[in-house]
Amino acid sequence: MGSLAVHSKKHKVCVVGSGNWGTTIAKVVAENTKEHSDIFEAEVQMWVFEEEYQIPKDSKHYNDETSHPRKLTDLINSLHENPKYLPNIPLPKNVVANPDVVDAVKDATILVFNLPHQFIGKTCEQLKGKIVPYARGISCIKGLAVSDKGCELFSESIGQKLGIYCGALSGANIATEVAQEKFSETTVAYDPPAMDSQHPTPQGTPHGSHTDLTKLEGEAKGLTGKKMKRTALPSEYPPLHHKNVKMLFHRPYFHVSLVSDVAGVSLGGALKNIVAIAAGFVDGLGWGDNAKAAVMRVGIMEEVKFGKMFFGDSVQTRTFTEESCGVADLITSCSGGRNFRCAKMAVAEGKSIGEIEQRELNGQSLQGTGTAYEVNDFLKKEGKEQEFPLFTAVHSILEGKKKPEDIPHLIDPNRGEE
Amino acid sequence: MGSLAVHSKKHKVCVVGSGNWGTTIAKVVAENTKEHSDIFEAEVQMWVFEEEYQIPKDSKHYNDETSHPRKLTDLINSLHENPKYLPNIPLPKNVVANPDVVDAVKDATILVFNLPHQFIGKTCEQLKGKIVPYARGISCIKGLAVSDKGCELFSESIGQKLGIYCGALSGANIATEVAQEKFSETTVAYDPPAMDSQHPTPQGTPHGSHTDLTKLEGEAKGLTGKKMKRTALPSEYPPLHHKNVKMLFHRPYFHVSLVSDVAGVSLGGALKNIVAIAAGFVDGLGWGDNAKAAVMRVGIMEEVKFGKMFFGDSVQTRTFTEESCGVADLITSCSGGRNFRCAKMAVAEGKSIGEIEQRELNGQSLQGTGTAYEVNDFLKKEGKEQEFPLFTAVHSILEGKKKPEDIPHLIDPNRGEE
Repeated sequence: MGSLAVHSKKHKVCVVGSGNWGTTIAKVVAENTKEHSDIFEAEVQMWVFEEEYQIPKDSKHYNDETSHPRKLTDLINSLHENPKYLPNIPLPKNVVANPDVVDAVKDATILVFNLPHQFIGKTCEQLKGKIVPYARGISCIKGLAVSDKGCELFSESIGQKLGIYCGALSGANIATEVAQEKFSETTVAYDPPAMDSQHPTPQGTPHGSHTDLTKLEGEAKGLTGKKMKRTALPSEYPPLHHKNVKMLFHRPYFHVSLVSDVAGVSLGGALKNIVAIAAGFVDGLGWGDNAKAAVMRVGIMEEVKFGKMFFGDSVQTRTFTEESCGVADLITSCSGGRNFRCAKMAVAEGKSIGEIEQRELNGQSLQGTGTAYEVNDFLKKEGKEQEFPLFTAVHSILEGKKKPEDIPHLIDPNRGEE
Repeated sequence: MGSLAVHSKKHKVCVVGSGNWGTTIAKVVAENTKEHSDIFEAEVQMWVFEEEYQIPKDSKHYNDETSHPRKLTDLINSLHENPKYLPNIPLPKNVVANPDVVDAVKDATILVFNLPHQFIGKTCEQLKGKIVPYARGISCIKGLAVSDKGCELFSESIGQKLGIYCGALSGANIATEVAQEKFSETTVAYDPPAMDSQHPTPQGTPHGSHTDLTKLEGEAKGLTGKKMKRTALPSEYPPLHHKNVKMLFHRPYFHVSLVSDVAGVSLGGALKNIVAIAAGFVDGLGWGDNAKAAVMRVGIMEEVKFGKMFFGDSVQTRTFTEESCGVADLITSCSGGRNFRCAKMAVAEGKSIGEIEQRELNGQSLQGTGTAYEVNDFLKKEGKEQEFPLFTAVHSILEGKKKPEDIPHLIDPNRGEE
């Protein structure tokens, strides 16, 4: 630890977002900033979209003072709990709720984004020019923005909009379980710009990290080829290599693996929902666990192919096959996740998935069906539908053009040869 | 297909074994030999350990002729069904049950071994010198022989004992489901001796195959370094490259992937049982699907490490992370398999796994506990217990020295650093 003494400044962390998952990550991060006080300021700012909240009468927090609606930030800061989005989980006192996003990010060198994806644009608009230029982001937002123009990762859009480097965190995690300190793992993708590494990367860094000389120039190619501006982290700060980033997230109940593949980490969390629908279809037919496992295996391999085809060489197979963000997240989603359950019910009951959504989700749509349609639009445009037989099968079944029973034939690699 | 016309002989297949899984594989193989009559003789011999069998009164096969015990081979050959081990599944008429193992293997160039592992030694003893010297084997026997001397794969012991090359078949398969033609996948490892490949390997061969010049010398190093004798396949026969081996097993309901990594394919099917016990422990604690998925992920990575450490460079990570024999088989075992279920019950009910075995399995032992002990003995002897923290944790919990709650700490890669 001796060499760290040369750094006169410590990293200041802000969690941008305070829902169920945002508050959980703030708790995780705040436990670590307190423990690793040589690298991080203990205080963690958490931006809260301000609202009035009424503590329910049966809550242990209900009393004279809370008998009327109060500001959520005041409640969080006095109760050290987020009573609306993460009730009954005590938060470390160094989590500070702040309703002013610009004030919350002031001087923060590490911005952890954890808010619903539809708010990314507006929030980044507010933050633009208000953050330190050498800040680094980590996006915990699952999903993918697929449009006519292509696929965009949320980490990438955040990085673009703010002119900073932005990594990603994704894994087999359910916020409430992590908050309750039930064991799970996650994956953090962070490919630190070489200019941050004033010190050699310590031994034991998983997977190594790229050293891309273009980053020294102050900008680097984004994953989809766009240029991303980056400003070097001043040498007053401890370097943000994998070991230090890991210290911010790793807990005894929340094991973190660091990788460099931001696209792979982000894609796993989005594409798994299509695979979970396929697994649900097959399970709904009563074909047993092996058929389901086969569909899952094929699904992982299509995720890998999608990543490599559209996000280039930085995407690594092992991100999908060996990391929590890939195989483990898929396993969880195909065990009890919504997409899996609804697809299974649809087949078992001979109903359309739309009917099941209506009944089980009050008409809300499944994420998996949305992603299946978006990804199919994209694949069609690229002329690559045939190269993703499972993704395409799910779309065709949703469209009523194929049946779940057709899946083995549709994904049979021998199909073309016979 | 034109080039195949030069081969005056066809491959003759014998399935050595006729239990639940053996009969199922005979069905699969016989469907294919009939379909690919340019490469294979249609008739598939199936060696049956002869016994007297009485058709039950409520069977559709019960009649005057079957009202008394009859020879199992006669029943199979007249009913075209194995009434004892695979009832109600019609077998193709080209499956011929044979009680004489030496007669069954006569002139067979492909021997598919599918019998309980305790009979391997005795059966090979009978077959020695009675098979054609250029025969090739495929072992469908899951498990691993771990002893003081080391770990031995069943495919390897068969190959050694008979002086032939022997590959392996393993995947997420339950015999009855495959027999019912419910969809599943499997993996066949076959690293064809270069001398078999009179023809260039056709395009599309998965993962390629090794070309080891030592094989041309008539012998090659076994996986654990032993020399294995091999005799070249006469050029009258179609070559046994991946494409032709695949044709013997691939069905519309049974998708086959061909690889070269025999050790990896065999290990996955054995080591998964230890991982399933760990997953059961964690699930029994009520920690949720993410904790279970994390343990499974760590388990796969320990399987890879075990393979590479003790079976050398031929072992490939992707055999475990991308193939049915690895990740898919593990997923299935951790869904509803015996090892998983019993371990989960033990923790949830606060009982020892021995008590659960007594109650649920009539005192039979779980395969996973046996494998956990055997693997631990081996790791201890090699001084490598610490490098396999999950395998070691399972053993310590079985021994009562650790608790399931300790698993996250025991497998925390940061444990040593703090």
